[in-house]
Formats: sequence, structure tokens, C-alpha cells
Amino acid sequence: MTELRLDHQRRARTGVAEAVYAPGKSPTQCAEAVAGLREGPGDGPVLLTRAAPDQAAAAQARNPGALLTPTGADERGTPLSILSWDVPDASSGTVLVLTAGTGDLPVAREAAAVLTAYGHHAPLVADVGVAGLHRLLDHQQALAEADVVVVVAGMEGALASVAAGLTRAPVIAVPTSPGYGSALEGVTALLAMTASCSPGVTVVGIDNGFGAACAAGRILARREDRAPR
Amino acid sequence: MTELRLDHQRRARTGVAEAVYAPGKSPTQCAEAVAGLREGPGDGPVLLTRAAPDQAAAAQARNPGALLTPTGADERGTPLSILSWDVPDASSGTVLVLTAGTGDLPVAREAAAVLTAYGHHAPLVADVGVAGLHRLLDHQQALAEADVVVVVAGMEGALASVAAGLTRAPVIAVPTSPGYGSALEGVTALLAMTASCSPGVTVVGIDNGFGAACAAGRILARREDRAPR
Amino acid sequence: MTELRLDHQRRARTGVAEAVYAPGKSPTQCAEAVAGLREGPGDGPVLLTRAAPDQAAAAQARNPGALLTPTGADERGTPLSILSWDVPDASSGTVLVLTAGTGDLPVAREAAAVLTAYGHHAPLVADVGVAGLHRLLDHQQALAEADVVVVVAGMEGALASVAAGLTRAPVIAVPTSPGYGSALEGVTALLAMTASCSPGVTVVGIDNGFGAACAAGRILARREDRAPR
Amino acid sequence: MTELRLDHQRRARTGVAEAVYAPGKSPTQCAEAVAGLREGPGDGPVLLTRAAPDQAAAAQARNPGALLTPTGADERGTPLSILSWDVPDASSGTVLVLTAGTGDLPVAREAAAVLTAYGHHAPLVADVGVAGLHRLLDHQQALAEADVVVVVAGMEGALASVAAGLTRAPVIAVPTSPGYGSALEGVTALLAMTASCSPGVTVVGIDNGFGAACAAGRILARREDRAPR
Amino acid sequence: MTELRLDHQRRARTGVAEAVYAPGKSPTQCAEAVAGLREGPGDGPVLLTRAAPDQAAAAQARNPGALLTPTGADERGTPLSILSWDVPDASSGTVLVLTAGTGDLPVAREAAAVLTAYGHHAPLVADVGVAGLHRLLDHQQALAEADVVVVVAGMEGALASVAAGLTRAPVIAVPTSPGYGSALEGVTALLAMTASCSPGVTVVGIDNGFGAACAAGRILARREDRAPR
Amino acid sequence: MTELRLDHQRRARTGVAEAVYAPGKSPTQCAEAVAGLREGPGDGPVLLTRAAPDQAAAAQARNPGALLTPTGADERGTPLSILSWDVPDASSGTVLVLTAGTGDLPVAREAAAVLTAYGHHAPLVADVGVAGLHRLLDHQQALAEADVVVVVAGMEGALASVAAGLTRAPVIAVPTSPGYGSALEGVTALLAMTASCSPGVTVVGIDNGFGAACAAGRILARREDRAPR
Amino acid sequence: MTELRLDHQRRARTGVAEAVYAPGKSPTQCAEAVAGLREGPGDGPVLLTRAAPDQAAAAQARNPGALLTPTGADERGTPLSILSWDVPDASSGTVLVLTAGTGDLPVAREAAAVLTAYGHHAPLVADVGVAGLHRLLDHQQALAEADVVVVVAGMEGALASVAAGLTRAPVIAVPTSPGYGSALEGVTALLAMTASCSPGVTVVGIDNGFGAACAAGRILARREDRAPR
Amino acid sequence: MTELRLDHQRRARTGVAEAVYAPGKSPTQCAEAVAGLREGPGDGPVLLTRAAPDQAAAAQARNPGALLTPTGADERGTPLSILSWDVPDASSGTVLVLTAGTGDLPVAREAAAVLTAYGHHAPLVADVGVAGLHRLLDHQQALAEADVVVVVAGMEGALASVAAGLTRAPVIAVPTSPGYGSALEGVTALLAMTASCSPGVTVVGIDNGFGAACAAGRILARREDRAPR
Repeated sequence: MTELRLDHQRRARTGVAEAVYAPGKSPTQCAEAVAGLREGPGDGPVLLTRAAPDQAAAAQARNPGALLTPTGADERGTPLSILSWDVPDASSGTVLVLTAGTGDLPVAREAAAVLTAYGHHAPLVADVGVAGLHRLLDHQQALAEADVVVVVAGMEGALASVAAGLTRAPVIAVPTSPGYGSALEGVTALLAMTASCSPGVTVVGIDNGFGAACAAGRILARREDRAPR
Repeated sequence: MTELRLDHQRRARTGVAEAVYAPGKSPTQCAEAVAGLREGPGDGPVLLTRAAPDQAAAAQARNPGALLTPTGADERGTPLSILSWDVPDASSGTVLVLTAGTGDLPVAREAAAVLTAYGHHAPLVADVGVAGLHRLLDHQQALAEADVVVVVAGMEGALASVAAGLTRAPVIAVPTSPGYGSALEGVTALLAMTASCSPGVTVVGIDNGFGAACAAGRILARREDRAPR
Repeated sequence: MTELRLDHQRRARTGVAEAVYAPGKSPTQCAEAVAGLREGPGDGPVLLTRAAPDQAAAAQARNPGALLTPTGADERGTPLSILSWDVPDASSGTVLVLTAGTGDLPVAREAAAVLTAYGHHAPLVADVGVAGLHRLLDHQQALAEADVVVVVAGMEGALASVAAGLTRAPVIAVPTSPGYGSALEGVTALLAMTASCSPGVTVVGIDNGFGAACAAGRILARREDRAPR
Repeated sequence: MTELRLDHQRRARTGVAEAVYAPGKSPTQCAEAVAGLREGPGDGPVLLTRAAPDQAAAAQARNPGALLTPTGADERGTPLSILSWDVPDASSGTVLVLTAGTGDLPVAREAAAVLTAYGHHAPLVADVGVAGLHRLLDHQQALAEADVVVVVAGMEGALASVAAGLTRAPVIAVPTSPGYGSALEGVTALLAMTASCSPGVTVVGIDNGFGAACAAGRILARREDRAPR
Repeated sequence: MTELRLDHQRRARTGVAEAVYAPGKSPTQCAEAVAGLREGPGDGPVLLTRAAPDQAAAAQARNPGALLTPTGADERGTPLSILSWDVPDASSGTVLVLTAGTGDLPVAREAAAVLTAYGHHAPLVADVGVAGLHRLLDHQQALAEADVVVVVAGMEGALASVAAGLTRAPVIAVPTSPGYGSALEGVTALLAMTASCSPGVTVVGIDNGFGAACAAGRILARREDRAPR
Repeated sequence: MTELRLDHQRRARTGVAEAVYAPGKSPTQCAEAVAGLREGPGDGPVLLTRAAPDQAAAAQARNPGALLTPTGADERGTPLSILSWDVPDASSGTVLVLTAGTGDLPVAREAAAVLTAYGHHAPLVADVGVAGLHRLLDHQQALAEADVVVVVAGMEGALASVAAGLTRAPVIAVPTSPGYGSALEGVTALLAMTASCSPGVTVVGIDNGFGAACAAGRILARREDRAPR
Repeated sequence: MTELRLDHQRRARTGVAEAVYAPGKSPTQCAEAVAGLREGPGDGPVLLTRAAPDQAAAAQARNPGALLTPTGADERGTPLSILSWDVPDASSGTVLVLTAGTGDLPVAREAAAVLTAYGHHAPLVADVGVAGLHRLLDHQQALAEADVVVVVAGMEGALASVAAGLTRAPVIAVPTSPGYGSALEGVTALLAMTASCSPGVTVVGIDNGFGAACAAGRILARREDRAPR
Repeated sequence: MTELRLDHQRRARTGVAEAVYAPGKSPTQCAEAVAGLREGPGDGPVLLTRAAPDQAAAAQARNPGALLTPTGADERGTPLSILSWDVPDASSGTVLVLTAGTGDLPVAREAAAVLTAYGHHAPLVADVGVAGLHRLLDHQQALAEADVVVVVAGMEGALASVAAGLTRAPVIAVPTSPGYGSALEGVTALLAMTASCSPGVTVVGIDNGFGAACAAGRILARREDRAPR
């Protein structure tokens, strides 16, 4: 009845490709959406996010050459992956992705995979929550040198404030929903991060690793636009 | 018509005296409530909290010998104080009171003054918010040695998690309401502190410096109960 | 790809061991995390919390000698347990754990098991909700004598306020999520407990029996640090 | 332009007279509204609630014979009163009004005054909060004998649950907004009271002492309707 | 380990028997809890609420003579019932139970079954939501004559306000969670009912049909206590 | 520095003129903004909403010929008005504006004044809250005949659902913030109205009488566009 | 026990037929409810909404001649449909239904199907979210010409504000719950849409496509009532 | 008693100077804090934000050479300004600051003034809300060319999503609190912006124009760090 309306020019207009969000789509729909975007006039990478195994398989069969990164599992235990096609050569940019706890890894992996698909270097340092400061302080050099820092944290989200105090780089915080009780499915971290006492922390939506990567990508892309050639 | 119902035995029963909360009471009511508590069978200190100048003056005129500590001001700018009578000799306990920012000082001063009234040592270290970690790390020794740590912080309340990672002492967190916007009048800090990733942080109500001091007092009083004589 | 980052020195630094939180980890990951912590330089107990049968079995196979305590079941009915290794000799401390209703038992059992793992005595008195005061009043002696009281309650959480009025001991309240409707999955009890009219009540996060036990453990550990030898 | 639309038959239809709520009305409007209701076909009492001095004076000048009860003050410190006209002879019913703290008195006084205006006996027992249980237990006889119990409490509102465990009478709880921080202007008490673990507690809106009195009045009026003559 | 702590004297003390809430209990635990209450000193009815078929069967096998009323189903589609034993002879009281929509029936049936178990007459009139006023107006006589009215409604809960305008009887409102979206699982109805513009409406917790029945039972029991003999 | 950016073509594009919202603007800014809109290419009415006396005076001095309607007062008691210029000849449309209580009048008057400024007939019927249904039923004919019905109500907002059950006309509900406690400054009414059980009720923002009038205006304007000529 | 209470005259009274909401009803109950409404005195269409395959089959077997429209799937993946009987001849009205993303399609399809059942023309334009404005601007003509515009959007719901700036038609916004994290199951979009800066946007409840269609239907029906014949 | 603890090295460490937040400080405290920061080892600009006239005057008397920018007024009407000292020579960076409405200007002016103090070019384009898209589209070139875009918007905050669709630059959104009712003092905009459908939008706290400027400053400073020399 109604068809997928693709936005081929998005990358030209905003520097961000339209990713295909797999949940709720049939394997065939995933495969066709990826193909449609790849066949369009854009020349950037194409992404399929939060894909279950059958969705990933269909998309890969129809569109060979994907880079697949497992991220985690949905609430029913189905393993999820992110796939990317047409990845450009590596840029000179480095985005350091930090997580506070192991529950934050799926979101962090999604962010790192998206950044990789855009050609950036995206090292992931996990489990550096503020309850054991020394784990974070061991990475001070990396913090100081990163072009952008993405902080993925749930519960009270304090890692964003602390990390931002240790770097001159832009800091993008991603509140996550894992955790129980007072974490309120990420709302606590969202509020805490937007109330950060460290000036210059910015925040994206709960569990939105994709959005954090796009924001970091905008920063690096613009820098490249501006670089003298 | 109805009269103040005093609870003279509370200190014997719970180790906590019934403080008189000044807001909403006339100067005379404040003065009489203090007198009533002092004349009762209890033998501990008596407190008058959040007293405006006229309330403090009336209470002091009727009950000489008070120790008065200015804490801050209410939302109309009226200066507020906490007064204490019948303060016992100093105990051997030390409660370190930390604040993240200057807006947290009135609550922290109330906590410290209540602790002092109970005979404890209560040093206050202000402005050690996590955006500049070194300010907190300068006090690691004091953190390590304190019997109890009270952390007073608003905004995202991250100081509680970080401080708890640096001490073996019990940590009592007080969320505060100053700050604007996403601080949501202390609700953000309350949620964040109860979702702390540092195990063993406990929390009292928003702006409840008095409650934090009572909780610390319970810990120290019980320790004294248990000490071999 | 990313590995578990263990925090071996946490117990030395904070008096609290890093427990392994089982949900979301594979049986093998649980087993290895426990082994990693036990093999590290720390000398305190090691915990595996909220473990399903397969996780518990794998951890026990890899790490013999565990003490296993059933706590309850997750929302799908899978029975959960808490396991501990390297439990020290019993301390002289007693933490009284109270529950308001039967729905609070899993959280209370977790708190008691963690306290036991730390070497404390942790008697559990269940079903003493305030709708039938005499049930609580029957335990006034135990309340008066405990070193610390942990109150586990959902719904309106009134037990914390009432119990705190009957003891000089520190009171740590744990709001719980069971119950339906207006209990709002524990948020009602969390708010009510932090607004307690009994001075000196402190609160941990919803369903965080582990955190309450750690807080009680900090109080008792510090007392032991301070005891004359 | 638009005029006050009075509902003269409300008492006949529902057993509850339409009270005039003073805030936001001019003194003259208050006076005329009272007069209009008294001149209508109903024969019950007429009430003017939360009246400032100028509103009360105008209403009394236009409508002699009022019973005036001071209740408290609004947030600007203006003293407020409730006025009643055409009070019937006393009924045989007794409604016990309890408050947890002194901040609850204005709402409790309003409830008691409305009940008195309907001809009921409404003793008010203040300051029996659960932090000092013995204060409440001193009134067990009154609780046991009351026809209806109205519990007025803010903060965590635990008094409703405890009182309901001590009586066979219907219990109507009124959450109040005084208090600061985690009391959330009465929302905490509202949630806690509707989540009460004591079966048979019912709740009215925040600070709605008038509504609680009307509910108690409905219970007693119906009983009188049913009484054999 | 811990055992069920029964409260045999509750009915004597509060006029309300302790019902056994089945969810989370094994069939055997349900059966034993019912038996324990029946064998105690109390003489009132004993209830088992929200029982699944296996729980109901076990309880009936161990305790013959139950009255079983189907109420609805849980979120997994398991049919639920309420069972009662030792039902007294019918009282003279009538509690009219109204529902706004068909989704409110399980809660309403629970309320009616509890009332029946206490010996009251509890007619249930369903589907009289305010979108079609005439459906409600057809029952004006029953509203006028009832001793108590229980209104069970979700969504915006307007039926409580409208019904209270049509009767002199006490009105107890039960917000329900069925419905989607803006109903917010009953929170919308809870807030709306406690903000009712009809004076004298009281409210119990979301989906708490049991509590509403207990509240109505208190009203009728007290009336019988007071009746001349 | 920055200047007011006027949107002259809005009426042509959307059928709605850009009103000047007075709060926060100086009298001169109000006067100039009105003048700027009137001098632009649009030909519809120009509005100044929520104007204090000094703002109204300045705007009238600079722009003679205004129609001024008092609406109410702001929270400091300053009387507010709405002013309109260039009002077209009356249309054939009738929008019935209903209010539940007297506190809803300022918002209702604003809605009616805006509708009048657009040339519609906007009778206002006040105080027809559902606690006294007969007051509303007296206006059934007007409800049945109106082209659009605007329902302005606070507290639980039940009037919207009831009114929508009595008419075939589109019903636009405006939640209002007056009221105290459980009304939560209009949030309760907003949620309740969007959860209405009467199909076809639509809702605008809290206190947004202006928006309701614009919505009604869109309905009538479109009908006129479509009318055969 | 209790039976379905049908409201046959609703269409005559309000212009809206009582639809049968399938969730929670047995296939037979669905079939009988449809039959009951069709056999009643009303002459409008009859709807069965959110029907699972077994419910749809039973209803069609008992009531031949239905128009069935698939809408989407429930959270367990069961495909859902809307069925309509006795659809009138097409009216002259056109309601343009817009969606921001593919997740909004089930709600949009429900709205369109209900409108079709009422005889209106209801073109659906999907995937015109504001992140790619040109997709919406491509439909400016359709926006300008529609009689009513229904905007179905989740996440931040910005499409409603933007669309309302591009048309003179009434705009009815439907917030939807799909999306994760900060979308808060539709609450974010609900709040944002009711706070729209575009005057004249009205809102229905979360996911209430049925309600939006009824609101549009009221507008068009009234226009037809008023049209000269 | 306690003194201001300055963080002289913050700029070296994070690229952000510690600004002095004036509210709650005496004029002398403001003056001394500024002097202290200027006399420290840092070499960047020093800021005094939200200063009332007496605070600004004292700071200027003690610290000549300030650049003062009026921003707006606090809720009591006191005019507020931002002052900066030691402003560096202009950088090559351009941050475009957009506002949706006039109520957003104080926050936008604060952001622009902070950016100017850091040496960036910060043009402010006001009143380009999405209700009149053409106003925004007139600035497409500026959007396309900016290095960073800061979007300041209240109400539903839709401007952030729309603007992000029109540029490749990083977009930082600032939700604002002005507006009434459903704007919920900025919470609606905060939620909506973090739920933006435009990938790559990041968000700071409500009314936190200072934070947005710091975030933009981090982006530009890092770019300069990285530039070849």
C-alpha cells in the first residue's frame, strides 16, 4: 500500500546517511531499503541498525559486501547487529567511546560501528565507571588526545561529567536504559547528563548510540570541510 | 485550639532530638517550643532550624545560651540560621561534609551545624564538584579518614558516586534544589544519587541537611553505644 | 573484542568488593568474572548476584566452594540465587533486615545474603508491615539492639518511618517494586522513604538490596576499623 | 458579562452544599455568592472557604450570623478563614481528625470546620506522626470509637496506613503539600496514601480538607437516612 | 526459611480480614495460607484473590466449601478468580458497583466478590461511561438508593465525578489501568479522580478493587456497629 | 540588536493571524508589533493577548480603534486584556464556549474574544461542571446547534467527555491550570482530556484559549472556503 | 453475568458510531457485538478495531460484507486489522493523513480506515518527517487543499507544527508510542504537540488514530449538516 | 567561613574557563571571584553570568575593561547581563545562534555573548520558529555555512529537528523554559529535542545557553588544536 520513502540526498544535505532501522521491518523490507539507498545518488555509507539474524541475512544476500558488527541482544535475547556498506577510507579523526558498565556495551558498540562506517577511528574503552576512578584516570592520555569523546552510561550517568573535566574535546553523552529501579529506564541518566556541572557536555536521547555517532560525525565532517587543501 | 505536642523521649528512643522547624511558626511559638523541649526530661541538645532573624531573636531571648550558625537565605532573601542549645562535649567522631558547588552551602552548613550540636566534629569542604576532579583528589586523605562522609550536591549529583569510590566510610548523599532547568529542583540529583553506581551510597530527601546529620549521628551514637568502656 | 575490566582493589579502597551482576551475562562470562576477581590481589568475599540456574552452575563448576542462597524469581519465573565465595569469619555486627510484605522477600534475601557474605549476622524478620503494628512491636527488642536496621518495603513504604521511630540504630530503607497500580514500580516507596518524617532514615535505589547491604557493611567495617585492639 | 451559576439543589441531590471557594473572587463576589446560596431553596449550611480578611468581612457584613474559623495563611502570609452559616443542630456522628505534623493544621482545621458546619462532632488531634508512635497509641480509644477517621498528613503520609490498622472505622486520608524537597508539594503523600498497605483507606486530593469533610459527611448522612425512626 | 506471618486478629481490630494475594505464591502456599487464616481465632470470611486455576484448585482441595468468582485474566491470558470461605449471612447493606467500560470489569468483579464475601449486596452495572450519559441516567434510582457507590473507571475517570453528582451516598472511585496511550496505565484516572470537582469523592489505588470493597465494608460495618439492637 | 521578525503572510498561508503575546514585552514593543502587523500585506484581524494596562494603553495610543476585552488577572493580580483590530464582519459560524468553573473564565474569555475578533459568534456559558449535570443539560439545545464546541475546564476536566456525548459538533478541549493540589497546574486535566472516552474530542495546551480559538477558526474558515458561492 | 451494553443511538446523538474495540474480547464476543450494533436502530457504519485474525474471522462469519484493512501488529507480532460494515457512499470530504516515520503507519492506517468507513476520502502520505523537509514540501498542494489534516508522529512530534504552518485546514495531531528511549512511549510527542507553536493544532491521545478520525469526521459531518441543500 | 575555591587550570585542562554564576552571590563576592580568576595562571577570558546591575557594577569597579551584554531579566524583572574580561582576538569560527521565539532571546543572547568572549563570531537570528517555515528557509545559506549551529527554542522545540535537516554542521539544541502550560517549564522541549528525528542533534540543559556556548567552543577549539600551522 504505502511504500518506503527514501531520502537519497540526506547525506549531501546534512552529512548523515539515512540508516535503515530494522526493528518492525520484514527481512525483505530491510534488504530492499538498503538496496534502494545504495542505488540512489548519494555516495556515502549505508547502514542497517539493530538487525536480527534473519534481517541481517536477507540484507547481506541482496547486498553483498557488508561489514557486520554484533552489538548485543534485544529484550527477548535475539542477537542484534549493525551492518554497513560502502564504507569510505579512514579519516584522520578519532572518537573515543567510553562506557561506564558492561550493560552499556550494546549502545557503545552501535556508536563505534556507525563511526567506523563513516570512516573514523573509534576505539572503545569499557567499564570505566566513576566508582573506581583509577580505571578512568588510566585513560587520561586518550581522553586528552581524542577529537571527540562519546560517553555511554546508565544509572546516574556521572561518567559524562567526570570525563568532560579531563579533556578539551567535545563530549557527547548517551544515557542508557539498562539497570533497574531508580535508573528509570534511562530517564535518570538523561536528566543527570543534561544537568551536568561540567560545562560543554551535550546529550542525545536514551540508548541513541546512532545519534551520538552522527553528532560526532558532523563535528569531524565539518572540520574536514574546513581544512585547507 | 490545638497545641504543640512535644516528643520529649525521642532522643532516648531514637538518639535524635526533636528539632523545631521554624518556617510557618510565629517567633513566640518558636521560643516556646524550644523552651518546652529543654524543660522536658530529655538531656540532649535542642535545635531550632531555618530560623528567620525575628524567630531567632525571640528564641534566644526566651532561651539564653544558644549557638547560632547562619546557613543561607530563603527564596525571599531573608537570612536563615540554625540555633542549638545544650550542646554536649565533643565526641571522637568526624563527619566530613562535602559540597559540589556554592549553591549547596546552606544545606551543608545546616548539616554541619546539627552535627556540631550533637558533639561531633564536622569539617566542611566546599566546591569540590567533579568537573575539576583534582579539587576532590586534594582531599583524599580526609575522605579516607572520616568516620562518615556527607555529600551535598545538586545538578546531576555525581559527587556522591565519585566520593564513595574514594573511601571506606559510609556515604550519605543529600540532593539539593538550587540550580535551574534540568536540575528540576533537586529531583534529578535525588534520582541520580539513588541510582549511584557506587555500592553503599545512601540518600536522604532533597535539601534535607538535617536528616543527613541525624543519619550520621545515628551511626556515631551507635558506635559509642557499642564501644567497650 | 572488549573485555571485562575488573576492579581488584575496590575492597581495599572502599571496603566493598565488586560483585558480578549476572543478568545479561553468559554462564561462561559469569564463571570467568568470578574467577578473575578471586584470583586478584583482593582478599574479601566475591559475589555473583541474581544468577539463573545455568549461570550459578557454571560459576560453581569453575569456582568450587560457593555459598548459594535462593532469593526469588525474575519476571519470567526463572529462580534466582546469590552466590558468595571466600566468606570471612563472622563479625560481631548484627544487621536486622525487616520486610513489610512477602513480595519484598527476594530483595531482603539478597541483602541478608550479601551481609552474610561479608561476615555479619543478618536475621530477617518478614511481614511486619504497619497495617498490623503489633507484628512490628513484637520485635522492639531486636530493633533496639541491632547495629543497623535495613527496612525493605514497597507500596507506600511506611515501615521505614515507623521502624526508625523505635530504634537508635542507623536505618537504611530499600524501596521495592512489587505491587501494582499506585506503587508505580517502586517510585512511590522511593519518594515516600526519602520524605520520611523520621529523622535519620537513609534510602538506596529501588530493589537495591545489594546496595543496602553494602551501606550497612560500610558502617560496620568502619566501626571495626576504629575499634581499639 | 457572565454570572455566577449557583447550584441550589446540590444538597438535596448529593447531601453536599455548594461551598463558595474564595480565592480569585472579589469581596463583593464572595458576599453575593453566599447570599445567593442562602436565599435559594436549599436548607443546609452555606460555606465560604479560604477567605482572606477582606473577603470574610464583606461576606459577614452582607450575611450576618456566620461562624468563622481561622485555618492558617496562604503563601503570602494572608490569614485565611472558613465561614459557615445556617449550621444545623449537632448530629450524633463523630469524625476524628488526625494530623501528622503542625504543617497539616490548616487543612485539618478546614476539614473540622466543614464537619462542624454540617452538625457533626469533629475533634482534632494534632502532631501524632508515626516517628513517635506512642503519641498515636495514646489515642487508640478515640480511634476505635470514631464513626469516621480523617487523616491529614504530608511528607510520606504514613499516618494513614498506621491509623487504619488501629480502627474499624472508615479512614479518609488527605495528602498535604507543606514540607519541602521530596514531599513534591503533596504528590509523594498522594501516591503513598493511594498505595497504602492497609486495606480500606480512601484518599482525596492534595490539601482537600473540604473534600474529606464532604466524604465523611456523606457517610454520616447516609447512616442517618437509614436509621430507623 | 522465613514463614508466612498471619495476622489473625486483623478483622477484630479493623473489620477487615487478611486476604491472601495469590500472585507470586505457589499453589501449596496459597492453600496453606487460607487454611492458616481459617484455623485462627478470627470468625470472618477468608479470601484468596487473583488466583490462577492451579492456585484455586489447590486452595479448594485443602479448604472445601469456597465460593469462586471468575474476575478476568492476567496479562498472559491466565484466567483469574477470587475465592471466599466462611461468608456470613447477608447484611442489609447495598453497594452499587459501576463500571465505565468493559475493560474495567475484572476490577469491578473483584470488588463485588469481596463485598459479597463480607455479606453485602453488591449489584454490578457495567458500561455506563459518560460518553453516553443516558446509560447512567437510566440507573439514577439505584444510585439514589445505594448505601455506598463504587465507581470503577479508567481512561479519564470522569464517571466518578458525574455519579457523585447524582447521589447522596458515599462514592469510592477505583482508577483502572486498562486502556492505552494517554491513560498512562491508570495514572491519568488516579489523578483525575483525586482532582474531582464533585465534593466527597474518595479514591483508592489503581486497580485496587479489593481496597474499594474494604473501604465500603468499613462504612457498612461501622453502621451496623452503631445500629440500635 | 535583534528585531521583531513579523510573519505578515501567516493569515494567507494558514488562516491564522500572528497575535502579539504581550507578557515580557515593553509597552512600546507591544505598540510597534501591532502596528507592524497592521501595516503589512495581510488583511485579517490583529490581536494583542494578555496585555497589562500599560501595554494595552500604549498599543491603543499607537493603534486606535481596538476592541478591548478584559480576561482576568495574572498571578500578581495585574488585570489582563485582549485587544483586537480590524475585526471582519460577522461570519455565520457559532462556537459555543463552555466552562466548568469560575476559575476557567479568563481562559474562556480569551478564547471567546479571539473568536469574536475573527468574526464568529462565540456565546460563553459558564459554570456547567459535571458535579451538577442539570446545569449542562439545560444547554443541550445550544450544544446540539453549535458549529464547534470549546470546553474549558480544569481539575479532572470531565466536562469535555460529557459534552462530547451530547453533540455532533467538533469538540475542542482546553485544560486549565487554576485549582490546587491534584490538579497539578493543569497536567491532570490535559492527560484526562487526551484520554477521553468520548471519541472525537481534541485537545490544545494548558490554558491555551488562544489556540482553541484558532483551531475553531480553522474549522469555520475552511467551511467557508468550501461553501458554494 | 454482565452483558455488553450497546449504545445504539450514539451516532444519532454524536455523529460517531460505537466501535467495538477487539483487544480483550473473545472472537464470539466480537462477532456478537458487531451484530448487535448492526441490528440496532442506527444506520451508520459499524467498526471492529484492532482485531486479531481469529476475531476478524469470527466477526466476518457472523456478519458478511465487511471491509477489512490490515493496520499492523501488536507487541507479540499478531497482525491486526480494522473491519467496517455498512459503509455509506463517499462524501465530498478529504482528510489528508500524514506520517513522520514508518513506525507511525499502523496508527495512520487505522485513522484512514475509520475515515473511509465514514465515507470520506483519506489519502495517506507516509514518511514525511521534518528531518527531510523537502519530502513534506513536495505535498504542499495536497496540504493546501485538504479539508482536514491528520498528522501521525512519534518521537518529538515536530511534523504537526510544521504541517500546520503550511495549510489553512484544521490540523489534528496523533502522538504515537513507537520509538525508544526519550520518546517515552508517546508522552514526549503528546506534550510537544500540545505545546505546538503553530496556533490551531489540536491533539488526541497517544496512538488514538480512531479518535483522530472521529474528530475529523465530526468536522466534516457538521459541514454537511450545514450545507445548503 | 568557607571560601570560594577557584579552578584556575580549568581552561588549560578543558578549554573552558570557570565562569562566575552571579545569582546568590553578593556584589563583593562577584567582584572578588572575577578578580581571583583573572589573577590566576589561566590566560583565557573570564565571565560573570546573569549579573544584576549591582553585581555588574561592583565587578566592573574592581575589574575594569569588561565587555557587558544585556541578556534579559529575571522573574522579578531585574535586568541581567553577562560580562567578559580578557577576550581573545577573533577566531575564524562562526556559530549561528537561532531562536524560535522572542521568549528565547535571553538564553540566546547569553550563548552569543559567551561565544564572543571566546573570540568566535556568533550571529543571532531570532524568531525563525517552524510555524512560519519561510522565515527559516530565508537563512539556509547561513545554516549551510556555519561551523556550528545553536538552536534555542522552547514550547515543543521543533526548530532543532528542522534546522538539523538543513545543514551539515553540528547542531546543539537548548530547550528554554519560557512559555506556559504544556511547555512544562522547558521539560517538554528537553524531551522533544532529545527525541529528535534528525540524527546528530545534541542537547544541553534547560535554559543553559552558557553550556551550549561551551560545547560549541570545545568543537572550535579542538579544530584549532588540530589545524596545521
